Amino acid sequence: MSGWLAIAGLGPGDDRLVTPEVTAALAEATDVVGYIPYVARVADRPGLVKHPSDNRVEIDRSRLALSLARQGRRVVVVSSGDPGVFAMAAAVFEALEAGPPDWRALDIRVLPGITAMLAAAARAGAPLGHDFCAINLSDNLKPWATVERRLRLSIEADFAIALYNPRSASRPEGFERALDLLRETCEPTRVMIFARAVSTPDESLRVIALSEATSGMADMRTVVLVGSSATRIIPREGRPLVYTPRSEPA
Amino acid sequence: MSGWLAIAGLGPGDDRLVTPEVTAALAEATDVVGYIPYVARVADRPGLVKHPSDNRVEIDRSRLALSLARQGRRVVVVSSGDPGVFAMAAAVFEALEAGPPDWRALDIRVLPGITAMLAAAARAGAPLGHDFCAINLSDNLKPWATVERRLRLSIEADFAIALYNPRSASRPEGFERALDLLRETCEPTRVMIFARAVSTPDESLRVIALSEATSGMADMRTVVLVGSSATRIIPREGRPLVYTPRSEPA
Repeated sequence: MSGWLAIAGLGPGDDRLVTPEVTAALAEATDVVGYIPYVARVADRPGLVKHPSDNRVEIDRSRLALSLARQGRRVVVVSSGDPGVFAMAAAVFEALEAGPPDWRALDIRVLPGITAMLAAAARAGAPLGHDFCAINLSDNLKPWATVERRLRLSIEADFAIALYNPRSASRPEGFERALDLLRETCEPTRVMIFARAVSTPDESLRVIALSEATSGMADMRTVVLVGSSATRIIPREGRPLVYTPRSEPA
Repeated sequence: MSGWLAIAGLGPGDDRLVTPEVTAALAEATDVVGYIPYVARVADRPGLVKHPSDNRVEIDRSRLALSLARQGRRVVVVSSGDPGVFAMAAAVFEALEAGPPDWRALDIRVLPGITAMLAAAARAGAPLGHDFCAINLSDNLKPWATVERRLRLSIEADFAIALYNPRSASRPEGFERALDLLRETCEPTRVMIFARAVSTPDESLRVIALSEATSGMADMRTVVLVGSSATRIIPREGRPLVYTPRSEPA
């Protein structure tokens, strides 16, 4: 009768990066809905029904979650990272807007999480320490021309840039084109960070110059950070520290 | 002898948005260093020394923290939000780079947190559900011309835009200029969100059209989100939901 829907971010992988707010919502939930590997991160317990689903069915999944909440269930839709950044929150609101009017009366909350670029930046130092942008390189959902235009303007604005979903098996060429565009428009020493599966046992982090970057360094578990022209490297024993200064000289 | 330095994000205000990783670091710390109101958020306990300092002394504060860690203390530098987003991490690395070489051998970690734009976006719906950027409107640290250029290019790129530090008593005119620029370049119905002190007892959230926005709606505790041209409002009883669709038609 008093159902609700929480769209929750599980962070990048380590349970120590899950907020207590999300943990509390999961403890009260009757149903967990999401992509298979994210639902698998939630511990089983009596009374909790799991609804894992495959990739690319985000709208069906959202409709299921909204329907369950409408029936009085306490539903958590899980995303990795932050649900509002290239994740489930926008999909749920798309489904809600197109759905029956009574869905709008539901108790719906979005519970933020640590998104991939912030986890990656923290591991590297502070590469997003000045103005920055986040671009989803997947062209499943938008024309490549849009990706390219945004990337060009971001470089012109001298943002640090976070590239989400840089590369998948089904579209290996997009990230190669993005690298070509970076090579055309940035100096060869531009700092790049390839951060894969940060905070999980599979974590790897590579700090390199643009001139050394190849598209094979990224996959769907990688977020790629491109420094601004001001981004600096502090050499030291082991992996260097990377940061973008807060200030720009007048 | 085995000192360390953690640069930690306390999130936007609610303790339920502090990650367990940050809580654990604070529990092991001997010293907490930071801006007065953020240090005040850390509970006192025997053996914990607090070093609160005022605004605009970020480099001095960083040097103190690095020196303490070098002396073998376990030091947490606290920021609100995420330490890597317009906060203390870049300042610490600036101080480290300019400081004595032995500082580079320190055990330094950055612990991510929920940054203001993600907390604000979650409250509003999913306004950052597609490509977006974050711009610090403070011109203490960079020329206004840079702010304006980035804002123009961001609008041209059709990003959703998060504006941090939009307005302070010492520089009331910058945000007014930013609003003028938005009025020149965006349609009057462009969605804006003024999110103040999200997750604290002082929280307020206002969703309005650009044509209704005035500079007095923002202060230093406000993050302002500007939708992209695709950002949508779902009307309902009470506050509407705001989201930016994941996809762009080809």
